[in-house]
Order: sequence, then C-alpha cells, then structure tokens
Amino acid sequence: MTYQDLIDACQPQWQTYTHHSFVMQLGQGTLPHTCFMHYLKQDFLFLKQYARAYALAIYKARTLADMRRALPSVAALLDHEIAHHVDYCGAWHLTEQDMEQEAEDVATVAYTRYVLDAGMQGDIVDLYVALAPCAIGYAAIGNMLINDTQTVFDTNPYRSWIDLYSGEDYQQGVAAATVYLNNLLAEISVHSQRGQQLIQTFKVATEMEIAFWQQGLNVGVVDSE
Amino acid sequence: MTYQDLIDACQPQWQTYTHHSFVMQLGQGTLPHTCFMHYLKQDFLFLKQYARAYALAIYKARTLADMRRALPSVAALLDHEIAHHVDYCGAWHLTEQDMEQEAEDVATVAYTRYVLDAGMQGDIVDLYVALAPCAIGYAAIGNMLINDTQTVFDTNPYRSWIDLYSGEDYQQGVAAATVYLNNLLAEISVHSQRGQQLIQTFKVATEMEIAFWQQGLNVGVVDSE
Amino acid sequence: MTYQDLIDACQPQWQTYTHHSFVMQLGQGTLPHTCFMHYLKQDFLFLKQYARAYALAIYKARTLADMRRALPSVAALLDHEIAHHVDYCGAWHLTEQDMEQEAEDVATVAYTRYVLDAGMQGDIVDLYVALAPCAIGYAAIGNMLINDTQTVFDTNPYRSWIDLYSGEDYQQGVAAATVYLNNLLAEISVHSQRGQQLIQTFKVATEMEIAFWQQGLNVGVVDSE
Amino acid sequence: MTYQDLIDACQPQWQTYTHHSFVMQLGQGTLPHTCFMHYLKQDFLFLKQYARAYALAIYKARTLADMRRALPSVAALLDHEIAHHVDYCGAWHLTEQDMEQEAEDVATVAYTRYVLDAGMQGDIVDLYVALAPCAIGYAAIGNMLINDTQTVFDTNPYRSWIDLYSGEDYQQGVAAATVYLNNLLAEISVHSQRGQQLIQTFKVATEMEIAFWQQGLNVGVVDSE
Repeated sequence: MTYQDLIDACQPQWQTYTHHSFVMQLGQGTLPHTCFMHYLKQDFLFLKQYARAYALAIYKARTLADMRRALPSVAALLDHEIAHHVDYCGAWHLTEQDMEQEAEDVATVAYTRYVLDAGMQGDIVDLYVALAPCAIGYAAIGNMLINDTQTVFDTNPYRSWIDLYSGEDYQQGVAAATVYLNNLLAEISVHSQRGQQLIQTFKVATEMEIAFWQQGLNVGVVDSE
Repeated sequence: MTYQDLIDACQPQWQTYTHHSFVMQLGQGTLPHTCFMHYLKQDFLFLKQYARAYALAIYKARTLADMRRALPSVAALLDHEIAHHVDYCGAWHLTEQDMEQEAEDVATVAYTRYVLDAGMQGDIVDLYVALAPCAIGYAAIGNMLINDTQTVFDTNPYRSWIDLYSGEDYQQGVAAATVYLNNLLAEISVHSQRGQQLIQTFKVATEMEIAFWQQGLNVGVVDSE
Repeated sequence: MTYQDLIDACQPQWQTYTHHSFVMQLGQGTLPHTCFMHYLKQDFLFLKQYARAYALAIYKARTLADMRRALPSVAALLDHEIAHHVDYCGAWHLTEQDMEQEAEDVATVAYTRYVLDAGMQGDIVDLYVALAPCAIGYAAIGNMLINDTQTVFDTNPYRSWIDLYSGEDYQQGVAAATVYLNNLLAEISVHSQRGQQLIQTFKVATEMEIAFWQQGLNVGVVDSE
Repeated sequence: MTYQDLIDACQPQWQTYTHHSFVMQLGQGTLPHTCFMHYLKQDFLFLKQYARAYALAIYKARTLADMRRALPSVAALLDHEIAHHVDYCGAWHLTEQDMEQEAEDVATVAYTRYVLDAGMQGDIVDLYVALAPCAIGYAAIGNMLINDTQTVFDTNPYRSWIDLYSGEDYQQGVAAATVYLNNLLAEISVHSQRGQQLIQTFKVATEMEIAFWQQGLNVGVVDSE
C-alpha cells in the first residue's frame, strides 16, 4: 500500500480536515485574530510533543539510515517551526517561555498523545502513519491555499503561515517524507489486517486534526458570545 | 506529599470535575438517556485503555510486590467494570463487540492517551498520579451522590452506576489505592520541582476528566437542537 | 510464516540451545548443584522481567481479546513458575526476598532486557517473537528430556524441574501459545523484510538463551578451579 | 545527591571498570589487535543503541530546554563517534555497512538494552543515570591514560582511541554532562529509596561496562588457545 491508500480510505475526514472552515478563513484573512492566536499557541505546544514523537522514531528505528533520517525532523521542529510561531507571537510580546507555560487544550492533548501512544504501542510504521496526517495535510493545505483564487495574499495577516507551509522547503520536505512512508508501507497489503490497522490509525489521527482546527474556531465563538 | 496535596493544588478543577452537571443530573436521574449511553460507550473504550495503563504499571514496577499489586486492577478492569457497562448496554442489544467497534471521541482519546503517555514518559509514580483522578474522583463522586439528599434512588435509571461506584468493593479498592499512592509520594516534597511536576500531571488529568463529562453532556445538546 | 519458520531459520542456534550441555547434564542428574542453584536464582530474576514483558504485551495489544490473552501469563509467571523456584530454593533456606535481592548476571540482563527492548521498539508481534524461544524451547526441552533414554528420573535431584516443563499444564500452555503466535505471523511472508526482521529477533533471543545456559555451567567451572 | 555519590557507592566496580586490564593494555599498546578490533566492532553496535537511548532522552524530556540538550548527543553519536570507529576499521577494509551487519555479543546486548530498559521503565533521571557510567567512565579513562607514565603514545596502535577520549572536545562534553546530571539529582537524597534505586542502576550499568571490556579480552584468550 501507499500513503495515498491511507487518504483514500478516509476521504470524508480528509476533506473536512484539509478544507476546514478554520483553514479557509485563514486563507481569506477573515479568521478572527483570537482564533489564530489560540491556534498558534496550541500549535506551539503541539510541535513540542511532535518533536518528542520524531525522537521516538529514532528510538524505534532499526538501522543507522532510519535513525539519521528522523534526526533532522527533530532538529527542524525544535528550531525552525517553533521559531516561526515564537516570531509571530513576539509581536504581541509573548516569549517562548510564555508559550511553553500555556495550558494544553483538550484537542491538543488528544492529538499529540494519540500519536505518541500509537507509536509506542506499535512499531515505527505505526508511528509514521500516525504522524502522516499532520505533515501531508499541512503540505496539501499550503498547496491548496496558494492555488485557491479566494486566497488573499497582500493584506492577509496570516500570510507568513501560508508562506511557511506552501514554501519550497516545507513542500520538498513532505515530498521526501512521503517517499519514505511509501517505502515503509511497500510490503503491506491494504486489505490485510495490518493494512486496516494502519488505516484506522491514520483515520483517528485525521479526526484529531479536525478537532484541533475546531478548537481554534471555538475560541472565536466563545469570544463573540 | 500525599494524594490530598494533589487535590488541594487544583481545587477549582477538582470541584468542577466531582460536581459536574453530568454527575449531578445522573444522581437526580434527569440526565438525558442519550448522554448516558454516549458516556457509557465512551467509558467502555476508556476502560480498555485504562487497563493498558495498569498493565504499564506492572511493566514499570521494580519489585514483585509492586507488580502483584497492579495485577488485580488489570483483571478487574478487563472483567468487572467492563462487564457492568456491557450488561447495562445489553438492554439496548449492544454487545461487547459492538462497543469495542465504536469510535473514540476527542475527550476519550485525550484523557486515555494522556495517562498512557505521562506514565511512559515518567516513572511509576507519574503513572499512578495520572491514574489517580479517575479512581479517587469516582470514589468521591459515588460517596457524594449516595449522601446527597438530592440524589434519587428508587426510580433512577442510572442506579446501577451509583451502586457500582458507591459500593463497598469500589470504595475499599480506592481506599487501598490511596494508601499505596501515599507510599509512592512519601519521599517527595510538595514544594520540590518533582512535586510540582506531579501536581501538573494530576491537574491536566483532572481537566481531561472534566472534558470527558462535558463530552457526554454535549451529545444531549446536539440531540436537542 | 509460522513459528516453525523462525526455528528453521536458525537451526544451529536452536540445536545448541535445546541440547545444551547444561540441559543434558540436568536430565542425567549430573549437573553440579552449584550450577543448578545459580541457574535457578538467575531464572527467578529472569521470570520477574519476563512477567514485565507479558505485561507489556497487554499494553501493546489492540483488542480486548488480545489483552485478556496475555493476562494469565503474567499471573502464572508471578505465581506458579516463581513459586516453583522459591519452593526448590527453600530447601536451602532461601526466601523469595533473598532471591529478589540477588544480583543479575550478564546473560540474565542480556536476555531479559533484549526481549523487553525488542517488544518496546517493535509492535506486539516483535514482542511475542522475542518471547518465543523461551516458552517454545522449554517445552521442547521438557519433551525431549522425558523421552530421552539417558534421562534419569528416580534419583535425579532436578526431577521437579523436568516435571514442571514436561508436564501437561506447561506443554498445553505452550501449544496454545504457538497457535496464537501463528495467528500473529499469518499475514507475514518469511521472505519479506518484516519476516527477516522477526527471524533476526528470534535468532538473537535464542543466542541469549544459549548464553543463559552457559552462564549456569560457568559457575561450576569457576567452583572447580 | 551528585554524580560523585553514584561513583562512591560502587567503588569496587568503578575501579575495576576504569582500570580494567583491557584499558591498561590499550594504554600500553600491548592489547592484542584481535581484542581491539572485536571491541571496536562491538562498540560500534553499542554506539548505535546508545544513540537510541539519547533519542529516548528527548522523548522523556519535559521542557524544550531538556529536549534541545539531548539533541547534540544523538547527532554526535550518529556522526562523530561512529565515524571514528568506521575510520579506524576502514584500514581493514571494513565499511559502516559491514560493521552494522556484525552480530551483537552478549555483553553488548546486556549493557545497551539495560540502559534502554532502565530509561523506559523509569523517568529521565533513571535514563541519564544509566547512561552515566559510559560517558563519565570513558572521560575518566581518557584522563587517566594520558597522565599515566606507563601509557605509550608514539608507537601505540590505539593512539587515536586515547586521543578521542582524552581530547578537549570529549572531556568538555562530559564535564557539561555531569553539571546537567547534578542538576537532575539535586533534589534527591542519597539516602532516600529513590537515591538507592539510582545507585543500583548506576552499579548494574557499571558492571555491564566491566563485562564489555572483558568480552573484548576474552576474544584474545580464545584466539591464543
């Protein structure tokens, strides 16, 4: 099987995730600022746990090649992606320390700990499948937004977010990651029990992504009440 | 420190959890049946993960005495508590297999995987502290409901739930568990970094319990719309 | 693939393990008592770690059926098998507490921690494959000894050991375990990368079994110098 | 407590480890080449597992600061230290691929999997304590050898090994690591149960280091028979 089989097996969830109202409003620049700030702070906490998950991938790897493959992801998460969030929030005088002290919301806990547990319970394939909706989905969203005629660029306050995830660096990183994921999946039949388990893991992780977007939107609802 | 220090350090969360509207409505028999059924099915899935966490406690134990201590908890969860839920749902022709196939909701994933990850990331003390809000809280709730003058017994459709958690078996089991937890905590100062970490873990786990009750209530809201 | 493929893939190691000089001397009652006592004390420590590994199998299981399957193994190890060793050593006034305080020798550490790490690094299949040489091998050894014309029964000081592992209880337990292992292996081709990984795990675990027997024999060599 | 308390609590083992005959012969250039080659190949396999253990430290860390602290160790192991071994063995036409295919000997399995399991079973403090005998011991050995009047430098075939572990880079890295370990231990009393557990872990890990040197020497014994 390939990563595309994972996506095909949960099309409704994948569409809801990659075209979530949070995403579309972000692309059009109409997303309430409180929603984006809440999301960004929670995503900062998410990235921290996500880096733990890539460290787990090094622990789970059987070969030096696989260990070395996961290492730059840990480094990139702890530096590059986190730095984007800190830079953005810095305009509101939030430091990295402030952001690390924020409380994790339910959907943040749900998604991150699901990935970590799926990876710990299973093997390195389970772990990468649980990680996949985030990387592949964000690349799909970045690509979708940059090609969407409704996307606003010049005056969009969330322009740096769109640039980050539609940028060459991120897109090429994910493209390489999908090649690797396909290697991991190559021996597994989509119709086997193992294949169905992996689909289940991918589906739950995608559902947790949806809950994560919704969590950001809900803040706006509460605020406007 | 003792387990009471954990509770004292997050009083607002503890009160919200143990006196949640879901609990009070359950005690008075006014909880919508859809809410209870949803909760029970999710709690079934919760207990399955919770049994994994007690199995992890055996793995994490350093002595035969500690290993043997966790074993009956795994057995009780896989048999006694799960059987209660299956028996109850059996009246609606749901089998254990049906219930195991249900999808986990966000708060179910959040709470269970948080406990499992806290236990895996830390040592056996972290694990038992993450497990504590459930056991201690349910015993406190069972005890509160049975003494609450507003609680309805004779015509309460949720009577078996109240009986289970206010019953001698459950109450004594939790009493023994708190003695054990106090042993685990005995050397740790509440004001140390280690003590503060444990408080943080207990607090987040309690917040996830609140989200779990709320998840049950939200079903009713959706249904009544 | 089946468990027999695992054995077939490492015949030299399997023969050395199941017909080790320690085993043959034990069957003939000629094994130095210091060797057997050392082995039994180390095997006690081994069983403790082995029980942790079966607890890990509950943690790693995805279904209630698989969780319930591993539970009796944990219970049997913590009670029945450990009790045999304590009973035997009791004749030399060693208590369970004494035995738990013994230091683990190198081969004991090597074998037990290899199994635990193989199970944690991989998934439940990796774990059961790492566990397999012990259960299957001891059943094969028990069966071989009871049918070996060179085996001494009446005056053999190690008779209770032969009885334990050749007995119906143990033999049937292992027979059921191999059926289960074959189920776990059913989807995996022996020629796949996954199949070869599992063979490698089984082979290393078998080599650690050999080192464990040798460790027992070496004590006699040191003593006789 | 401090890391020195760990060393003080197992002086006999520490002395045997840091002044092992393998080490002294290496310093004097009299170590049989087969012993050193065997050691180096096993140490290569050791470093691979050791890198998994530092990746586990990232997983186990609670703060971004602690996560970032472990990252360079993973990178250094996967690059710098492994490269030294590959460079050295390259003179005998062994490639990294050849070395990764070597079978792990018993003491290699024992030490590496003990560290990984101690870290997984316990928390980040247990993990760093299990890792400590290697880093601190090699720095002590490097320092001892360079100051030992019996050490041969100019014609010593193992000169690059002495240079690596006595060099400024390695010595300063370990010095920084001990400061960090002391921070982790600062709240723990040496006389507490927790302190005694950590001493036990350090002691077993040190015993596994001794077995690792002995494993190298034993090859020479076998060869000369």
